[in-house]
Parts: sequence; C-alpha cells; structure tokens
Amino acid sequence: MAIATKDWFTEQCSEFSSAFSVNITKKLHSETTAFQTIDIYQTNKFGNMMVIDGFIMLTSLDNFIYHEMMTHCCLFSHHAPKNVLIVGGGDCGTLQQVLKHPVENVTQVEIDIKVTELSEQYFPELCENNNDKRVNLVFDDAINWIKNAEKASLDAIIVDSTDPIGPGEGLFTKDFYKNCSKALTKQGVIIHQSESPFFHNNLLTEIRAKMHSAGFTNVETVFFPMPTYPSGWWSGTLASNNNLLEPRQCPNALATEFKYYSHDIHRGSLQLPNFLATI
Amino acid sequence: MAIATKDWFTEQCSEFSSAFSVNITKKLHSETTAFQTIDIYQTNKFGNMMVIDGFIMLTSLDNFIYHEMMTHCCLFSHHAPKNVLIVGGGDCGTLQQVLKHPVENVTQVEIDIKVTELSEQYFPELCENNNDKRVNLVFDDAINWIKNAEKASLDAIIVDSTDPIGPGEGLFTKDFYKNCSKALTKQGVIIHQSESPFFHNNLLTEIRAKMHSAGFTNVETVFFPMPTYPSGWWSGTLASNNNLLEPRQCPNALATEFKYYSHDIHRGSLQLPNFLATI
Repeated sequence: MAIATKDWFTEQCSEFSSAFSVNITKKLHSETTAFQTIDIYQTNKFGNMMVIDGFIMLTSLDNFIYHEMMTHCCLFSHHAPKNVLIVGGGDCGTLQQVLKHPVENVTQVEIDIKVTELSEQYFPELCENNNDKRVNLVFDDAINWIKNAEKASLDAIIVDSTDPIGPGEGLFTKDFYKNCSKALTKQGVIIHQSESPFFHNNLLTEIRAKMHSAGFTNVETVFFPMPTYPSGWWSGTLASNNNLLEPRQCPNALATEFKYYSHDIHRGSLQLPNFLATI
Repeated sequence: MAIATKDWFTEQCSEFSSAFSVNITKKLHSETTAFQTIDIYQTNKFGNMMVIDGFIMLTSLDNFIYHEMMTHCCLFSHHAPKNVLIVGGGDCGTLQQVLKHPVENVTQVEIDIKVTELSEQYFPELCENNNDKRVNLVFDDAINWIKNAEKASLDAIIVDSTDPIGPGEGLFTKDFYKNCSKALTKQGVIIHQSESPFFHNNLLTEIRAKMHSAGFTNVETVFFPMPTYPSGWWSGTLASNNNLLEPRQCPNALATEFKYYSHDIHRGSLQLPNFLATI
C-alpha cells in the first residue's frame, strides 16, 4: 500500500508492518497503462523516483547499487557472456551496465513500453546507450517470449522484474525458470531479483527451490544494500546448470567504472548468514 | 524528529528527507532521565522496540545483526582479547556477545542506568548473562572514565554509542579516541558504530579521520544491513595501532552460535565500495 501526501510518498510493507517515506517536492507524472500505474516524483534528496503500483522501483540516487549487483554478479559468473537477455528492466539501468561488458547482443523484453519512455524522459542518464547497435528493445510479455526462444542461444539472463504481484507474478514460477534453462547454453547463468532477505525470506526460499526444481544445479544468492527498498537490504538469486557460480576477476579498466560492485564485494555478497541457512 | 501516533512510530532522517515507520501495538514505557528520553514500544512484527530521543535504538527482531557485527568484528581482529571495555551498550546486547568469547574481564560504562534497567525488563533475552562474574557494570560518563583508565590495560574497546548528538556527542572526538588509544595495549583494537554509509558518509569520513589523527595507524570500516536503522545499511569503524585488522578464524563451536556473523561475512564486510573510496 502506498500513501502520497503533498510532501511525502510512503510505501508500506504489509509483511512487516513497516513503512518507508520519501520527502517529495513535485509529482512529475502519473499514468495508468494497460499493465500498471506508473508515478514519477521529484524528491528532495533522492533525485527523481519511479513508483509502480505503489512500490518504489528506482531513484536517481541509489539505483546504481541494484543495477550493478544484478548485472555484474551475473555476467562475472560466466566466463565470456556474448548473448544476454534482460527480462523487464524497462528503466534501462541494467541494460546500461550490461553494455559495459564486451557482449555481442542484448535483448531486453519489457512488457510495458511506457516504463522505458518515462525512463528516457526522467532518468536520461540510464538510457544514454539505448541506441547502441548491440541492443534489441522488445516490448512484449517475457513469459511468452522465453517459451519461443531458441534453445541454448543465451549466455546470461537477468530478470530485473517488479515484485511477484501484478505483471511480474508469472516470472517467479518453475515453468518460467525451465524455459530460461532451455534458452541458456550449458554454461549459461541466470539472476533474478529475489526481494528482501529480511522481510521476504519465504519468497527467497521459494525462488531458490523453484530454480532447483526447474533443473538448475547451482543456486546462489547475493546480498546487497538498497536504501529505498523494504528493509534496505536486497538480494539477487543466481542459478546455472554447470558453473559453480564462482566470480571471475573483473578487468581493471571496468573495475574503476563501478560505484558499488567489485570482485571482492561480489565474493563477500555470496556469504549466507546462519539465520538464512535454511533458504 | 520522531512522530508517534496510536498505530505508528515514525523516525525521520533529516539528512536525507526520508522516514522509517514501524507499526506499534502498545506504548510500554516512556521516561525522561537526566540524560535522555527513553520510550519502549511493543510493535506488530519487530517485537519490543527501544527509542532514545526519537531514534530507534533496538528491536527484538534485528538487533542481533548490529550486536554480532560490532562485537565479533572487533574481537576477532585481536589475537586473544582478555580485557574488554564496552562504552555505552546499556541494552547489554553487545555484552552478551562479548561473553561468548573466552574473555577475563568486561567492563561496561553506560551513562544512563535506566537504559539497562529497561532492557532487563523489556529485552530480558539480552540481559541473561549480566551477572556473569567476568562482568563489571559501571554507570558513569565514559568520556571521564577513559581519561582515568590504566594505560595499556585493555585489549578491545567497543563503542556502542547513540548517535553523535546528545550524551553520545563527546564520544565522536579525537580526544576520546586518543584516550582510548592510551588505554589499549599495543595490539589493542577499537570499534565505534559509525552510522549509515549511505546517509551519513560525511560523519563516517570524520570518524575515520579522527581515529587516524588520534594515533591509530590502521583504520577499517565494516558494513552490514540493519533494517531498522536509517537507510537499512550501517557501519562500524575499527582501529588499531599495530594490527592489520585481518580477521582471525572463528572457532567452529562459536561459529554455529552466531546468526549473522561469520568469518567470511567479516572479510566481505571489510570491502569498501568505490563510491565510498574517499572516506
């Protein structure tokens, strides 16, 4: 549930009876598309903020942590990713990070073209490379798209989805993961944003179990801070059929470009605290 | 600034124009002592919650992350700590963690006896070992106490203080750190809670600079999630004169007792993201 007054946007986290509020200075846009309601606010300290169906999706200030961790933890778990699929990711923050790698093709399948159009308008810094010739922007339902994807055609899939309610729900299923597994090469790697390890650890457990039951033999979770997401602590779950999900070294030229990700942070983020040991 | 209604306690973070709210079911206690105002709430999902001067100090649910990281990152940075000082820490959550180590003496200098009395009443699970014969509970101003401490008498100092406003302010000074340095042995280690790396990184920079200027040659920061503190991401800053602050291995018998801390998490938490590289 979300409450917006003249000065404050508040996102309630029903699972933990808590809430996070951001001081807003202006409502820049509000629109109900065929899929969801998208609101854009100007905030006092977090820059612009995109909210979908009442949940904060990104702010200018802290999105780099999420986008870097989702992208680089996935791509540095593969020896040399060339063909990459982004599921969701309409704000193009993940896409921008993927393009820092020497990939050959990046297909992004976002259900709602409005997310990308509004990101181009209000988060232009994330969309600077949308015209890169390696990029193929598809606006379609990724659940169907992946069913028809060529077998063993992808090295990496980054599922940068909304929460598992609304249009994102079908992405958190065994069937979806099975189709991803088929579309990936034998060395292929997938990552799915897996919510708050503190507030949603049942969901995290479910995602890991579904990935295993879809046929992935290695499943690992990375943990990272995300100040504007519930609990301020977030996760991404990696899976692969053959790889041990050991991060390879990050080339120096790239390492200096990243604001949060580093090889050592990647290794550290894979450590599972005991209190989550049952996941 | 804090706002409490019948159902919600809200802590505003003025630096980042944001707020965190917790659904409360009952106000259990409210008292203004000679030092500060202490409120205790029963919450819907976080168990009991202690608030000092409007800032959430601890909840039953998530305090273990903070207490384990503050204690074990410090004590495992020393080869064999025997004599330990806790500054502040009146809720006794840090004390409980320290007692898991084979220490000989733990002195806790808390300015406000009411914090400990209320913790014994509302957080009894943290106070179970307060009568351990190794414990010396002192209720006094630690700023003065440390001035008169015997030189080179302590192996470790854990500064488990409130924020640097109110009674905690004098603990964030070069003079205080100098006195700590004198009271520590040559292999001695100090840790001070150093606020949110995301919201308060100026303060974190200051703490690190003051520790260096007080004579500590090695200064390192550990980062960890803390869902009920501003931004959900917190830090502790370690310093020592001689040690490299490399964590030693944690004995297996202890490792299984911890809910968050582990040797690998400790190593991972020491990794500094690029965007904080100037701290």
